[in-house]
Amino acid sequence: MKSNLKVGIIGAGQLAKMLALSGIPLGIKFSAMGKKNDCAAGVIEIVEIENNMDKVLAWAKTCTVITYENENIHMDLLKQIEKVCNVYPPIQSIENSCDRVLEKNMFKKLSIETTPFCIVDSVNCLREGAEKLGFGGILKTRKMGYDGRGQKVINNEIHIKSWSDEIKQLTLADNSICGQYIYEKFIDFDFEVSAACTRSRDGKIEIYPLTKNTHEKGILLKSEAPFRNENLEQKAKIVLEKLANNLDYVGTMVVEFFVVGDNLIANEMAPRVHNSKHWTIDACTTSQFENHVRAILGLELGGTSSSRCTMFNCIGRMGNVNEFAKFKNAKIHMYEKQPRIARKLGHITILDKGATPQEIAELENFVLSKLDH
Amino acid sequence: MKSNLKVGIIGAGQLAKMLALSGIPLGIKFSAMGKKNDCAAGVIEIVEIENNMDKVLAWAKTCTVITYENENIHMDLLKQIEKVCNVYPPIQSIENSCDRVLEKNMFKKLSIETTPFCIVDSVNCLREGAEKLGFGGILKTRKMGYDGRGQKVINNEIHIKSWSDEIKQLTLADNSICGQYIYEKFIDFDFEVSAACTRSRDGKIEIYPLTKNTHEKGILLKSEAPFRNENLEQKAKIVLEKLANNLDYVGTMVVEFFVVGDNLIANEMAPRVHNSKHWTIDACTTSQFENHVRAILGLELGGTSSSRCTMFNCIGRMGNVNEFAKFKNAKIHMYEKQPRIARKLGHITILDKGATPQEIAELENFVLSKLDH
Repeated sequence: MKSNLKVGIIGAGQLAKMLALSGIPLGIKFSAMGKKNDCAAGVIEIVEIENNMDKVLAWAKTCTVITYENENIHMDLLKQIEKVCNVYPPIQSIENSCDRVLEKNMFKKLSIETTPFCIVDSVNCLREGAEKLGFGGILKTRKMGYDGRGQKVINNEIHIKSWSDEIKQLTLADNSICGQYIYEKFIDFDFEVSAACTRSRDGKIEIYPLTKNTHEKGILLKSEAPFRNENLEQKAKIVLEKLANNLDYVGTMVVEFFVVGDNLIANEMAPRVHNSKHWTIDACTTSQFENHVRAILGLELGGTSSSRCTMFNCIGRMGNVNEFAKFKNAKIHMYEKQPRIARKLGHITILDKGATPQEIAELENFVLSKLDH
Repeated sequence: MKSNLKVGIIGAGQLAKMLALSGIPLGIKFSAMGKKNDCAAGVIEIVEIENNMDKVLAWAKTCTVITYENENIHMDLLKQIEKVCNVYPPIQSIENSCDRVLEKNMFKKLSIETTPFCIVDSVNCLREGAEKLGFGGILKTRKMGYDGRGQKVINNEIHIKSWSDEIKQLTLADNSICGQYIYEKFIDFDFEVSAACTRSRDGKIEIYPLTKNTHEKGILLKSEAPFRNENLEQKAKIVLEKLANNLDYVGTMVVEFFVVGDNLIANEMAPRVHNSKHWTIDACTTSQFENHVRAILGLELGGTSSSRCTMFNCIGRMGNVNEFAKFKNAKIHMYEKQPRIARKLGHITILDKGATPQEIAELENFVLSKLDH
């Protein structure tokens, strides 16, 4: 008996592929709006219709629910789609998270500690911000930044001058806020963790274990999970619940934190499944992807019990599958994308239940030997 | 960078679907020869060409390797395909395992203890066999039997008479051995276990933990894994290695055993992935499916470290996905087949890492409440 549950995904990259692979065993169908040679091609139906709203709406009507793999998405598109099909996570979660200023204001409103910041619309703004908060900060685009893109370190007046032309150009541009900046003070943190939860349509929340993350040049390289620390877990849970309930969120969401002593400082949230939780596919009872699919379809959520593991991103270069297959306890996920500097081409999760510390270290060295970022 | 590894599967049922789902994350492509509405449809390419040998061979030539999900398959078809593409597991493993007499003779040749049996070509044969081995046995077709089909209990002379017409018909039929019988003596066993291994093209073997199996009316209902017993594990390993090496086997194979005290009595072998090892998807580092795919493609095998779990088959009736989603630690696998008495419609693996004994018992009761066999 074929099921009639069908999830439409805006985007057909590796997140769409992993969403689909998590739901197919449950009899759920998937269709992705993307390009014919995207990562999810060959696994699920791909429709190429981005620039034709009539066709988009006709496609959306064939789906039980619509979701997206990336929050950098045209709001107008989502608002049109919402008229003909449920869209989850709710649009307001994107609006609040894809603009770093709105996101920080939301954190403040909910008493979630975050890094000091100020809005930057001009060179003077930046100079005032640097004076008020101090040098040693980072200038980020308010929107569309990921993996450290669109970020500039500001340590002194020379840095300000070097970016001033670019900032002036923005100030002269039309009233789109897309290119505007935020200045965030660096904080001296011990390490980074990320927290995730999935919230169901009826408000039930499943919390995932914390992950300890290591970045290289702004790109996630390694996630170790579960990271056990009762105090931090409790604090992260409170933040996740505040955000998820406040946004009436449905689906999986992630918050990245800086750890400073016993405290968590919220860096940013992602209204979607997140790279730092890809290990949940291989080490959790229910992955972040499967619970996202369950949530948006109104199904009961699955449990999040976890085994220990370490996940590595393959960045820039990856090589062929058999180079990783020689690591006995590695779970291999290849995105089959063209190699390109700083591009995520796949991830490998190595499971403690079989692996020795030596095997994990050898895998890390191997991943680093391929790294091109 | 899209990989060019493509596995062709003869058959497009749930085993083909699970083979594909295990290999897709590694960038492997799949194509199944089957019917457009088979279980694997919607996940991988399905080609409907069974009765046209030219088209079959053209399809086989597009694949890196050909495998099959079921050993009840025309030998001629495989022998033709083998001329244009590698076929794994090797054809001789099917020849030796799809006929119960050849299978038992192979066990004997390799000094693998098995149940007492005799070949039955006529009513007299059966009577002689029952006299020699004793009543209390089972008359089975030599070929094509599964899930207890084609099996008749022989406890007395009345049973022999009641099947005599059927046996006579067979004796009169042409010289195909397809319908001939074997009489096997029942043995008084403690319980049943199954053992599996995957053997690579270069002869490396990965052994899976033993599984304790419970059948209902000849159909597998429950598998508990890993079943730990050092003595039995060692004995099973020896049997698997003997069989796999003797057949120059490539891929995953399974042997079902009766446990009698400290001994294993081989019941039968399957030259393929097997229902009693479906739990390896959710509880092993590398599932029986993924290792089968790795083996036939000539990749390195993955490790088989396991977490504890219990797997239930959903037989005859299943219901909808949300009825199972309420069990927090259940991994749901729906085959999306039409419900039919005694048909396997899906399986559920419940993971000890999250589940309490109570949740497992409740799931078992729920599965039993749906059972129709």
